[in-house]
Amino acid sequence: SCSSNLIRATLFPGDGIGPEIAESVKKVFSAADVPIEWEEHFVGTEVDPRTQSFVTWESLESVRRNKVGLKGPMATPIGKGHRSLNLTLRKELNLYANVRPCYSLPGYKTRYDDVNLVTIRENTEGEYSGLEHQVVRGVVESLKIITRQASLRVAEYAFYYAKTHGRKRVSAVHKANIMQKTDGLFLKCCREVAEKYPEIKYEEVVIDNCCMMLVKNPTLFDVLVMPNLYGDIISDLCAGLIGGLGLTPSLNIGEGGIALAEAVHGSAPDIAGKVSIKDISSLKHLKCNLANPTALLLSAVSMLHHLDLTDKADMIQDAVLKTIAEGKYRTGDLGGSATTTEFTKAIIGHL
Amino acid sequence: SCSSNLIRATLFPGDGIGPEIAESVKKVFSAADVPIEWEEHFVGTEVDPRTQSFVTWESLESVRRNKVGLKGPMATPIGKGHRSLNLTLRKELNLYANVRPCYSLPGYKTRYDDVNLVTIRENTEGEYSGLEHQVVRGVVESLKIITRQASLRVAEYAFYYAKTHGRKRVSAVHKANIMQKTDGLFLKCCREVAEKYPEIKYEEVVIDNCCMMLVKNPTLFDVLVMPNLYGDIISDLCAGLIGGLGLTPSLNIGEGGIALAEAVHGSAPDIAGKVSIKDISSLKHLKCNLANPTALLLSAVSMLHHLDLTDKADMIQDAVLKTIAEGKYRTGDLGGSATTTEFTKAIIGHL
Ligand SMILES: CC(C)[C@H](C(=O)O)[C@@H](O)C(=O)O
Ligand SMILES: CC(C)[C@H](C(=O)O)[C@@H](O)C(=O)O
Repeated sequence: SCSSNLIRATLFPGDGIGPEIAESVKKVFSAADVPIEWEEHFVGTEVDPRTQSFVTWESLESVRRNKVGLKGPMATPIGKGHRSLNLTLRKELNLYANVRPCYSLPGYKTRYDDVNLVTIRENTEGEYSGLEHQVVRGVVESLKIITRQASLRVAEYAFYYAKTHGRKRVSAVHKANIMQKTDGLFLKCCREVAEKYPEIKYEEVVIDNCCMMLVKNPTLFDVLVMPNLYGDIISDLCAGLIGGLGLTPSLNIGEGGIALAEAVHGSAPDIAGKVSIKDISSLKHLKCNLANPTALLLSAVSMLHHLDLTDKADMIQDAVLKTIAEGKYRTGDLGGSATTTEFTKAIIGHL
Repeated sequence: SCSSNLIRATLFPGDGIGPEIAESVKKVFSAADVPIEWEEHFVGTEVDPRTQSFVTWESLESVRRNKVGLKGPMATPIGKGHRSLNLTLRKELNLYANVRPCYSLPGYKTRYDDVNLVTIRENTEGEYSGLEHQVVRGVVESLKIITRQASLRVAEYAFYYAKTHGRKRVSAVHKANIMQKTDGLFLKCCREVAEKYPEIKYEEVVIDNCCMMLVKNPTLFDVLVMPNLYGDIISDLCAGLIGGLGLTPSLNIGEGGIALAEAVHGSAPDIAGKVSIKDISSLKHLKCNLANPTALLLSAVSMLHHLDLTDKADMIQDAVLKTIAEGKYRTGDLGGSATTTEFTKAIIGHL
């Protein structure tokens, strides 16, 4: 089945509901005749000394080789002496930009109905340096590191993204009135890059004010670019505007042309593999589930865009959005009672 | 006029629209027979070497003596060699907790209609340490400092506040999954204090998730307590839910029983002292303005609560809320066309 026309992509189904929503993506991709061959990798059962985490070295090699992958949720096993799975992937694959398009889903009502923005988060440094220590008893400090290299890199990507996606404005989010050196350097880099894109409007907005404006009127923003922690906060806030992390795609851009799409919601072990009452009574499915695969499907769509498989991307995105808009087959988190299988079938029906 | 029955309070009218909204507070207080005598202090015209800022030493002494004050917006003059006015006040007066009650204003419609929470922000350390330096060219770092002393102090205040204000739950906002030492210490202190308040439910919520939950359903929260920067972000986000900083009161609690109420919005130099067309044509007022004094009035109400002048506090708050709810005399920022003077008069009419 491995023909030379197929693009190989790494698939991390992840844990919890991960395998169930990954199954949905595989089904939809195959129904849509997407020329992708999955190379599946699971989280290891013990710490791999080469990665210091449960992420196996082989799986990293797979992404490095394929340059493209899709990842379900991974819960970091509790215990000492290993790194968070998500952070391991970011560090080892140098996933420097986390891109999250965030738009209101037609027919799925929230308090906001015209959200259409993209958050681009620096994903490797800042408050995530891991450098912390106790100065004296009762006094601890964490280091926030900002480098010119990483700031330029993510700023470049943000403007490149804006330009190639027909976006008109890039807003750099910061707190340089307080952190003049770190956030100041970040802004300086954004300004340098902005000069090379005169057709894109560039502006700066303080994070506290940004959050206030986002909840008052998110249409004020187009592309937002920011250091790591602000990106963590603002991307989740934005997801909340349109319904939550179960609905928002995410794509990580890494050095060397790597792109790893990712559902950023949790692995929801409480519903993973659960059979709904409906299914038990009808006994139609041996294994069916309650999870919503939308975030992973739309992340897979981001991956297809990245691969320039625009037709397939649009076709799948349309089918997902139509299924949600129609409202007949929604999963429980969206107030419906469809199983993952039923929801997936409905999407395939709309392809 | 200085009788021993009067409580002396320091008043910083501030700059920009500050004097105009302070005037509104003075009028309302006097109409409501509030037993307060104001001791007015203005920002200096040059840097006071004892404070290293435009805040004068005398004004700080006034707050220290009176233990209570009210502050309008202060824009930090541009230039080197001095500290931000707001930060100077926080540091010099050891204003360790910033308390912002945030509730939907009856009759003033936003996307949210049942917000009722309080954010309590650690106000002296964390990301605001001011400690930053360049490691090598292109690499800068900022230090976030968390101490046991300041964390316990703000946690104590949060639980004390919850208990004395009939609140049921305190949520500590953090990012201890990433900053295990700093935010970890903050949480540890919150947990210690929580044990002393078994009647108050205690929970912990990661900041990104907190922001998402706040925009989806703010009624999930009651009292939120957090380190400095998270407080900065979340308190502005919450203000956005109910209409913006022009509507939200703020009270700073300092060591030694000091309380400094404060309007946290900007000084809006663009509308300060402006006369609306209406006023020009009627020529009724020599000086009238467009600013909304609500945030300063409600901050003054917080100050009265702090002084246990509950009746006066309730009376003024009711009058402000009634005036806004009625909608006849709203200032421009709320979509109305009333001047500050007219709005203030309407409030006095409702006392
Ligand atoms: C789980 C956590 C470490 C992670 C982060 O903070 O980056 C998550 O919030 C995310 O946004 O992917
Ligand atoms: C003006 C700025 C320094 C200040 C802060 O960050 O604390 C402001 O945002 C606030 O919340 O009072």
